Amino acid sequence: MAAETVDSAWRQRAQRVLPGGMYGHLSTKLLPESYPQFFSRAAGVNIWDVNGNAYIDYMCAFGPNLLGYGDAEVDEAYIKQLKLGDTMTGPTPLLVELAEAMVAQVSHAEWALFCKNGTDATTAAVMSARAGTGRSTILRARGAYHGTSPWCTPMTAGTTDGDRSNQIFYDFNDPASLRLAADSAGTDLAAIVASPINQHAFLTQQMPTVEYALEARRICTERSALLITDEVRTGFRCSRDGTWDDLGAPPDLSAWGKVIANGHCISVLLGNAKARAGAEAIFVTGSFWYSAASMAAALVVMRRIRDTAYLEHLEKIGSMLRTGLGELASRHGIDFEQSGPVSMPLWKFKDDPDLRAGFFWCSEMLRGGIYTHPWHNMFINAAMTETHVEATLKSADSAFRELNAARSHLPANLRLSAFL
Amino acid sequence: MAAETVDSAWRQRAQRVLPGGMYGHLSTKLLPESYPQFFSRAAGVNIWDVNGNAYIDYMCAFGPNLLGYGDAEVDEAYIKQLKLGDTMTGPTPLLVELAEAMVAQVSHAEWALFCKNGTDATTAAVMSARAGTGRSTILRARGAYHGTSPWCTPMTAGTTDGDRSNQIFYDFNDPASLRLAADSAGTDLAAIVASPINQHAFLTQQMPTVEYALEARRICTERSALLITDEVRTGFRCSRDGTWDDLGAPPDLSAWGKVIANGHCISVLLGNAKARAGAEAIFVTGSFWYSAASMAAALVVMRRIRDTAYLEHLEKIGSMLRTGLGELASRHGIDFEQSGPVSMPLWKFKDDPDLRAGFFWCSEMLRGGIYTHPWHNMFINAAMTETHVEATLKSADSAFRELNAARSHLPANLRLSAFL
Repeated sequence: MAAETVDSAWRQRAQRVLPGGMYGHLSTKLLPESYPQFFSRAAGVNIWDVNGNAYIDYMCAFGPNLLGYGDAEVDEAYIKQLKLGDTMTGPTPLLVELAEAMVAQVSHAEWALFCKNGTDATTAAVMSARAGTGRSTILRARGAYHGTSPWCTPMTAGTTDGDRSNQIFYDFNDPASLRLAADSAGTDLAAIVASPINQHAFLTQQMPTVEYALEARRICTERSALLITDEVRTGFRCSRDGTWDDLGAPPDLSAWGKVIANGHCISVLLGNAKARAGAEAIFVTGSFWYSAASMAAALVVMRRIRDTAYLEHLEKIGSMLRTGLGELASRHGIDFEQSGPVSMPLWKFKDDPDLRAGFFWCSEMLRGGIYTHPWHNMFINAAMTETHVEATLKSADSAFRELNAARSHLPANLRLSAFL
Repeated sequence: MAAETVDSAWRQRAQRVLPGGMYGHLSTKLLPESYPQFFSRAAGVNIWDVNGNAYIDYMCAFGPNLLGYGDAEVDEAYIKQLKLGDTMTGPTPLLVELAEAMVAQVSHAEWALFCKNGTDATTAAVMSARAGTGRSTILRARGAYHGTSPWCTPMTAGTTDGDRSNQIFYDFNDPASLRLAADSAGTDLAAIVASPINQHAFLTQQMPTVEYALEARRICTERSALLITDEVRTGFRCSRDGTWDDLGAPPDLSAWGKVIANGHCISVLLGNAKARAGAEAIFVTGSFWYSAASMAAALVVMRRIRDTAYLEHLEKIGSMLRTGLGELASRHGIDFEQSGPVSMPLWKFKDDPDLRAGFFWCSEMLRGGIYTHPWHNMFINAAMTETHVEATLKSADSAFRELNAARSHLPANLRLSAFL
């Protein structure tokens, strides 16, 4: 029986008034037992749990933290606008200025429609494509996450077959499977919905091949369908532009969220001229979609994305970490897989089907003050320095050593048995 | 041709980078031409447009403004928490405290699931009901607004029949039509989704009859289905409890938003013990759903709801306004209909099918510094005083007079021709 801590006391209170004690992607039910559920504070690269432990945080709030928690310039802009007016009976000109900033930043974008959740943006993208083409069928990569609206939530409890009607699935990076799916759609193909990078939970990340991205673009152009990329997770983490714009396969519509205002609540659907009529035809809105403070914050983030070397810094820090971890693992004789862009790493151990080694290693890292994730991609943020990487590598050295000592007698990991 | 103003200059810029120049419920396309699109500031009961005009604002941001714009205590709590940590890798204990506060406040609630849009909460309610009952069919009142997810958006562009499958419609306040719909659902009835008050755009508001609410409750209980109320608009405006709890027809699930944090972005699904298993079975989440600052703000709002006479104040101010407007209209010999709760009035002129009189009168009010709406219900907020009502009545006196002078030669109103 675990000792009573501040965290366990809050979990008990949560059990009464929150479904399942905690719901959604921040639930720690599928993480090692030692992981804290509740946090008290965040600043720069750090988070503090309610037990008083500080961590270097490689989850970055599952993405929103791009420039460091509580970035002074971003939050100052937020607070300044909050004092002028936030949620009002009409929008402020910041809505126009932010749309202009997004259009200036992302090659394929000619207009912007702001919302709140990443799901709002992916859903509005699909609606726009259907309205604009007058067709219904969308193609989606098998297993890709696009949010939790009934049409896309990864677990189907509470949804009906109708919610997922007019969807055909294909395999990421498999142009033949994509073309087959498009052929099945016949003359009803409204859109292909694509994650720029394959980032399924539990699985090794895959970068897109140019061939795959170009085939998606080609099919949409040939059939007057629209190409939608879901940049909610990837956006501005590997590029200052759209991930597939860089590959020469610019989408017609793209959904963005998370980093746009460095943690303040806003998301956005971007589109080109071809996709505009559809976006004009649909009715989507929300009580807080035009709130000005998060737009003021997002304007600062967009300027920082454009004018600073944040991206090169993410690459540098991410590369240092990747190289350092690779060297350490090899020194310890451990087969340690690092996949995805260096700014969004996912780490896995070889021959670890129930992730018992991953859970053990992450628990050791946590003990060393490093918050990592055993099966979801992580994020580097621009406030991280070489000092943080060094601290991380020091902890990793020890965690690899402990893993080697413990590996032969690690107990089975039952926490993920429903998923693996 | 209208004179060039700051507002019209922003509209032109908006035309380039926003679908339709402006989208969603804050678009002024369906309002009188004189209505400004862009605002610069809000404080207390006032909003300022970008042309520099101040208005007493009866829209209250379409509901979120309950205690006055920029309420000092609410915003101070927000900013204090923002500085500690907002969107993080885990929730803070505020999540638990706020769930406890909601459960303590709303009779039927035993748990809370926080999200961002009102639509998130109504959608999670339907998903919970389907997951919990293992059934698919939901009943909805014809024309009722529950958000803009594909299953419920009031305009169907961009949706498919599949999105609306397993829905049967009935008429508000018509128990016979409700029972007929329930019978059509047979053994597949998952839930009845009900707006507590009938608040359709363009139409006279209707208060629910006790008979209707009780019949909805009875049908759900008889058939082991769940009763869902959509309190997003009504919540805490007419009661400190659920609107139908007061009628003796407590729902199993209820969706709330708008006022919860006085304009900061948060919404919530509340439920009872019977509805808990369904809420535990579904997977819904969002990047910013656990952000702490809006929860800190909501805790202040919940305390103010519980401990202050805000509600009695809304009633008093709303009643003064209703009585005053009624007297003025009658003095001017005008048949002026005021419907709905006094805290959420809707105003209409008799024999005004294209709302030309309403548009004229609202334009006159606007000129007098009062922002009203010709076809959507409005909102009273707790910062309003007798002085504001007096200013409103003074402007109304003049607007009624001008309307009488102009009525016989008002031009047809073409702006709403697609809707009326």
